[in-house]
Amino acid sequence: MTRMKLRHVTEVSDDLQVQSLLEKARKESVSTAFDRADEMMQCGFGSAGVCCRYCLEGPCRISPNGKGPQKGVCGADIHQIVARSFLNHLTQGTSGHAEHGREVALTLLEAAEGKAPFEIKDVDKLYAVANDLGLETADKTVNEIAKEVALKALEDFQKQTGIMNWVQMRAHKDSLKKWNDLRITPVNAHLEISKAVARNAMGCDADPLNLVLGAVTMGLVDGYAGLHLSTDLQDILFGTPKAVKAKYSMAVLDEKKVNIAVHGHVPMLSEKVVEWSRKLKPEAEKVGAEGVNIVGVCCTGNELLMRQGVSVASSFSSQELVIVSGALEAMVVDIQCVMPGIQNVAECYHTEIITTLPYVKIAGATHVEFSPEIADKAAEEIVRKAIKNFKNRDPEKLSIPKETVDAYAGFSTEQILEALSKLNADDPLMPLIDAIKAGKIRGVAALVGCTNPREKQDIGNVTVAKELLKNNVLVVATGCAAHSLAKNKLMSPEGLVYCGDELREVLEAIGQAVGLPSLPPALHMGSCVDNSRPADLLTALANKLGVGIKDLPAVGSCPETHSPKALSIGTFFIAHGVDVHVGVNPQVSGSSVVTNILCGDKQEGTVTAEEVFGGKLIYETDHIVAAEKLLERINMKRAQLLGE
Amino acid sequence: MTRMKLRHVTEVSDDLQVQSLLEKARKESVSTAFDRADEMMQCGFGSAGVCCRYCLEGPCRISPNGKGPQKGVCGADIHQIVARSFLNHLTQGTSGHAEHGREVALTLLEAAEGKAPFEIKDVDKLYAVANDLGLETADKTVNEIAKEVALKALEDFQKQTGIMNWVQMRAHKDSLKKWNDLRITPVNAHLEISKAVARNAMGCDADPLNLVLGAVTMGLVDGYAGLHLSTDLQDILFGTPKAVKAKYSMAVLDEKKVNIAVHGHVPMLSEKVVEWSRKLKPEAEKVGAEGVNIVGVCCTGNELLMRQGVSVASSFSSQELVIVSGALEAMVVDIQCVMPGIQNVAECYHTEIITTLPYVKIAGATHVEFSPEIADKAAEEIVRKAIKNFKNRDPEKLSIPKETVDAYAGFSTEQILEALSKLNADDPLMPLIDAIKAGKIRGVAALVGCTNPREKQDIGNVTVAKELLKNNVLVVATGCAAHSLAKNKLMSPEGLVYCGDELREVLEAIGQAVGLPSLPPALHMGSCVDNSRPADLLTALANKLGVGIKDLPAVGSCPETHSPKALSIGTFFIAHGVDVHVGVNPQVSGSSVVTNILCGDKQEGTVTAEEVFGGKLIYETDHIVAAEKLLERINMKRAQLLGE
Repeated sequence: MTRMKLRHVTEVSDDLQVQSLLEKARKESVSTAFDRADEMMQCGFGSAGVCCRYCLEGPCRISPNGKGPQKGVCGADIHQIVARSFLNHLTQGTSGHAEHGREVALTLLEAAEGKAPFEIKDVDKLYAVANDLGLETADKTVNEIAKEVALKALEDFQKQTGIMNWVQMRAHKDSLKKWNDLRITPVNAHLEISKAVARNAMGCDADPLNLVLGAVTMGLVDGYAGLHLSTDLQDILFGTPKAVKAKYSMAVLDEKKVNIAVHGHVPMLSEKVVEWSRKLKPEAEKVGAEGVNIVGVCCTGNELLMRQGVSVASSFSSQELVIVSGALEAMVVDIQCVMPGIQNVAECYHTEIITTLPYVKIAGATHVEFSPEIADKAAEEIVRKAIKNFKNRDPEKLSIPKETVDAYAGFSTEQILEALSKLNADDPLMPLIDAIKAGKIRGVAALVGCTNPREKQDIGNVTVAKELLKNNVLVVATGCAAHSLAKNKLMSPEGLVYCGDELREVLEAIGQAVGLPSLPPALHMGSCVDNSRPADLLTALANKLGVGIKDLPAVGSCPETHSPKALSIGTFFIAHGVDVHVGVNPQVSGSSVVTNILCGDKQEGTVTAEEVFGGKLIYETDHIVAAEKLLERINMKRAQLLGE
Repeated sequence: MTRMKLRHVTEVSDDLQVQSLLEKARKESVSTAFDRADEMMQCGFGSAGVCCRYCLEGPCRISPNGKGPQKGVCGADIHQIVARSFLNHLTQGTSGHAEHGREVALTLLEAAEGKAPFEIKDVDKLYAVANDLGLETADKTVNEIAKEVALKALEDFQKQTGIMNWVQMRAHKDSLKKWNDLRITPVNAHLEISKAVARNAMGCDADPLNLVLGAVTMGLVDGYAGLHLSTDLQDILFGTPKAVKAKYSMAVLDEKKVNIAVHGHVPMLSEKVVEWSRKLKPEAEKVGAEGVNIVGVCCTGNELLMRQGVSVASSFSSQELVIVSGALEAMVVDIQCVMPGIQNVAECYHTEIITTLPYVKIAGATHVEFSPEIADKAAEEIVRKAIKNFKNRDPEKLSIPKETVDAYAGFSTEQILEALSKLNADDPLMPLIDAIKAGKIRGVAALVGCTNPREKQDIGNVTVAKELLKNNVLVVATGCAAHSLAKNKLMSPEGLVYCGDELREVLEAIGQAVGLPSLPPALHMGSCVDNSRPADLLTALANKLGVGIKDLPAVGSCPETHSPKALSIGTFFIAHGVDVHVGVNPQVSGSSVVTNILCGDKQEGTVTAEEVFGGKLIYETDHIVAAEKLLERINMKRAQLLGE
C-alpha cells in the first residue's frame, strides 16, 4: 500500500498534548483518524454532492463542470441529486438527536413510574416545563407530573395530525407562523424522518426547492424533538446546569487511578457510571489504584461536565488518542460520533471498549447492555470491568500529558438569567439588552459543532471565537467547539485578554455581581443537544424586544464540523433567520440552485433562505474571513434593528 | 459531450412496441432512461457498496481489491461500510411502503369518520381483519369497526413497546418466535425506520452482523406495515380483487379518447381518477374525443387492473415511452418509481405531468394537490386538465402501437382459495397440497419486482418464469414483473404451452372448475405491496402442513429489480426462510462478510441467513442459471419436507 505523506503533527492539531500523543501513536504504528484522513483520497463527485446511490439503476454521478451525462439514469438532474444528498445528511443528523430525545422521554416515564432507578433532580424545571405544556399541576405528585410530561414528549413521536408539542411550546411565534405558512412544521419526529427518507428515495421528490424545504423540516425536528426536548427532560432528570469549574485536556487522565472514558451522547448511562465509580472506590483500591477517574469525551463529556463537573479529556477528532495514552482501562460508549477506529486502537493497548446499546455495537468490542431499568446493574458491571483491567496496564506504554486547563462551564439559560438578575432583579434581560443597544455587546455568536480529523484541530473554533470576542461579540459555545475554546483558556477569566474592552467590562460586571472575578469570555452552554439553550436565550431576547429572532444580531458558527448533526442544528437556526457559518465543505457545491437557496443573497426571481427566513448558510474555510463575514451580518442586523 | 454507444433497440427490450417507441424517441432526440443508462458510467466503488458519504470527514471509499486505504477516516472497515450501505437501501425501500400503509390507514379512518369520500367496499374483509386483530364487532356499525381497524393500523406507527399489531396478526408463529429470539421484531414502523437511520449514521453501529440484522428488521417493517397493512386496508376500502380480464401493452392507449396515465403506487387518487373519467365523458365528447381512457403504469396500474380491470400500458423502465406515443394528455403521479425524466420527455410532446403529493413534486410539472378529504375535487380537476389538453395533441407526433395482449389478473389469496374450493369445498387448500405432495406442482415461485433500464426489458422476468413453469413450478407474480409476464402471454391460457404437463393439468382442472378454460400459467397477485398475498398463501400452506414457511418448496425471484423496495421485500421473505433470487447487482459485493451473511451456505463458524432463517439471497445474472438454482433449492426443500 502506498502511504500518502502524513501531515506533521503540528499541522494536525493546535494542541501540544494531542501532537505528542499522535507522535506516540505513529511511533507505535497505531493508525488514527488524523492519519487515515491524510491517506484517504476524497472523491470529487461525493464532495460536491453529485453522486446518487439510491437505486440499482446507478450508481449515477454527474460532473459539475458539464462534462459527461447531465442526468442520472432516472432523469434526475444535478440539482435534484445534490438536494437529495443534502436532505439525506439532514435526515441522518436529525434521526440521532430525535432518538436521543425519545430515549430520555422513555427514561423519564420509567423513572416517574418507579421502573427505572432515576429520580427527578430538578422539580422546579419539571413544573416550568409542565406549565409551558399547559398541564394542570395542582394536586399532583411530582411523579404524576413527570409522567404527564413524559407522555407529552412521547406524543411528539406519535401524533398523526397537528404540530409537535415542543414546537408549540418553545418556538417563537413569528417563526412558527412562517413555518406554518410554508407548511413545513413537523407533526411528529418519527413521521417526518420516515417521510423524509421516503420522499428522498428513487422516483419520489424531484423538486430541489421542495427537497430543501424538507431539509428545513428536518432542522425543526432536530431542534424541537432533538435539542429542546432532550435538554428539558435531561434538566428535569439530572438537574439544570449551574456554573461549575472543571479541568480540560488529555492530562485529566490520572496515572494513579482506574481511568474510564465515557463517550457518546445520552447521559443516562454515564450519570450512573459516575455514581458507581464513587461507590466502587474500595474495589479500585483493592487492585492498587487510588480510585476510579471518569473522564469525558465528546458530548457525554459535556453532559457530565455541565452537571457533575467531570473533567473532559478529548473532543471528537482526538478520541483515539485518549487510548494511546496507555492509561485508559475502559472506554464506555453509547451512540453517535463513536469512531469504529477506537476498537483497533484499543487492541494495541489494554483498553477495553464497551458498547452498551443493542443497535450500536462494534465488532470485537465488549458489549454490556444498558437500558434505564437495569441502569445500576449495567453501570456497576462496567466499572468493575474497568477496575479488573487496571492490572493489565503496561507501564512501558504509559504516557499521560501533564498540564490541565481550568474552565468554567454550566451556563444554562437559567444560570445566565440568574447571574443577570443580580444586576436587575426585576428584569434580568435588561442589562444584556442595554449592553447590546449600547454596542458594548455587538451581538451574540454561538460557537458550535465538532472537530474534524481532516482539519487542524481547534484552530478554526478558536480563531473565529477570538476574532468575534475582539470585536465585542458575546460568545456562547456547545459541543466539541466548546472543548477547543476551553483548552485555549476562553472559558476562564484568563482569556479576557482576547475580548474587546467593552465586552470585557460587561463580563466583569456580571461576573463580579455573582462573586466571580469575571464571567469567562465564552459561556459553555452544554452538549450539542443543548443548542436549545442559545435558542431559548434568543427567543427570550426577541420576545423582550418585540421582534423576531431573525431581527437579532445573532449568528452561529461551526468552523470544524464533521457531523451531519451540525448541518441539522445549523438548519434549525437558519429556519429562525439566524445566519450560520460552516467551515467544512457541506457537500452541496455541485448545484448552483441548492447553493443559491442555502447561501444566496436576496435576489429577485430566486428563492433563498435569506429571503424566506432571514438567515443563510455561510460556507467559508478561511477562519478570519469567516469571522469578518459574521461581523458584517451582525452589523447589518444591528443597523436594521437599531438604526445604526 | 462524448456520447456513449447506445444499445440497439432490440437489446433494450424484448417488447417490439417498446423498441419502436424508443426508435421514435431517438429520432425525435428525446432522451429516455434506456439511453441514459448507456451513457452513465457506473462507479465501481458505489457498485460494490464500498463508498461512504455519511459525514464530512469523507467521502471515503475502500478498494475491494486491497489497494489503498482499508479503513475510512473514522476507522470503518469495508464490511461495516457495505453493511451500512445495504441497511440504507433497505431503509429507503421500507420507508416508501410504510408511508403507503400509513396513508391508506389514514384514509380508512377518514372514510369511517365520514371525512373523506370513500366507502367500505369489502365489508367481509373488514370483519375478517377486525376478527384477526381481536376486535369486538358485535353491535357495531361498519364505520365503527372500520375506525377501530384504522386506529389499530395507526398504532403500528405509534407504539413505544411490544410488537406491531400486524406482525402479531399476520406472521407465522415459528417465524415470529425466531424474530423475537433474535430481538429483531419491529415495535412500530416509524420508530424502526428512524432508529435504522440513526444506527446507520456516523459513529454508531459498527458491527456488520448487527447491521444486517437491522436490515432484517427493515424487511419485517416492509412486510407488515408496508405490504400486509396496505393490502388489507386497500381491500377493505376498494374491494378484494377477483379474477378479471384486461389488456396489456402500449397499444392500450386509445387514439380516439383523452388518454390519462396513472402512475405511482397509492390507489386512493387513481381510484377517483377512474371514477371521474367516467363522469366527465360528456366533457371529453365536447372536445371531440370519444371519452376518457385511463391506462396504468407501474403499481398504480396493477392496483387498478386488479380491482377495476383497467388496462396497463407500461412497467417501470419504459414509462417515458408512454409519453413518446404522442397520445397522452396527462400523466398523473403520486409517489415512488416516478422517473423525474418524464417531465423532460413531456416537454417534447403535449403531455401534462401532474404531481399530487405535497412532498413529491417535479420541477416544471403541474401540481394538483391531493388528500383524501378533497379526493373528488382533485380527481375532477385532473381529468378536466387532461380533457382540456386534448386539443394540443400533435397528429404528426402520434404513434400508438397496435396490438394488445389479453391477460387474466385479480388472483388475491381469497380468489385462489375460492377457485380451489370448487375442488374441495371443505378444505380448499388440500387440492394444492395434494398436487405439491404428488409432485404435480414442484413448488411455488413468486416472480416479483421491476424492470430496470440497464437490463433488457422483460427478458429476465420471462425467462426465469418460463424455466420454472416448464419444471412444473406454480408461478405467481406481482409488480412490474407481472407486466413482463402478461405481455408474454403468461397470464392467459395461451401461455399454457410453456408449462410442464403436470402443472398444466392442475391449472386446467382448477380453471375448469370455475368455468374458465384454465387458470393462466402465472397468477397475477397484484402490486408490489401485494407481495403480502403470496406471503399469506405460504402461511396458510405452512399452517395446514404444520411446518414453518422455511420448510416449504417456495422461492422468490426478482430478475430485473431497480428499486431498493425489492431488496426490502426480498429481505422480508428471507426472514421467513424463503430463498430469494435477485438478478441485478445488490451492491454488497465489496464485503465478503456481508455477502456471506446474505448469500452464504450453512457453514460452521459463520452466521448466515440460511442458517438463521432457512433462506438466503441468490444473486445470479444469468436467467437460466438462476432458474436452475431456484429449482435446486425447491428440490432440496422438497427432499427435506417430503423425504423425496
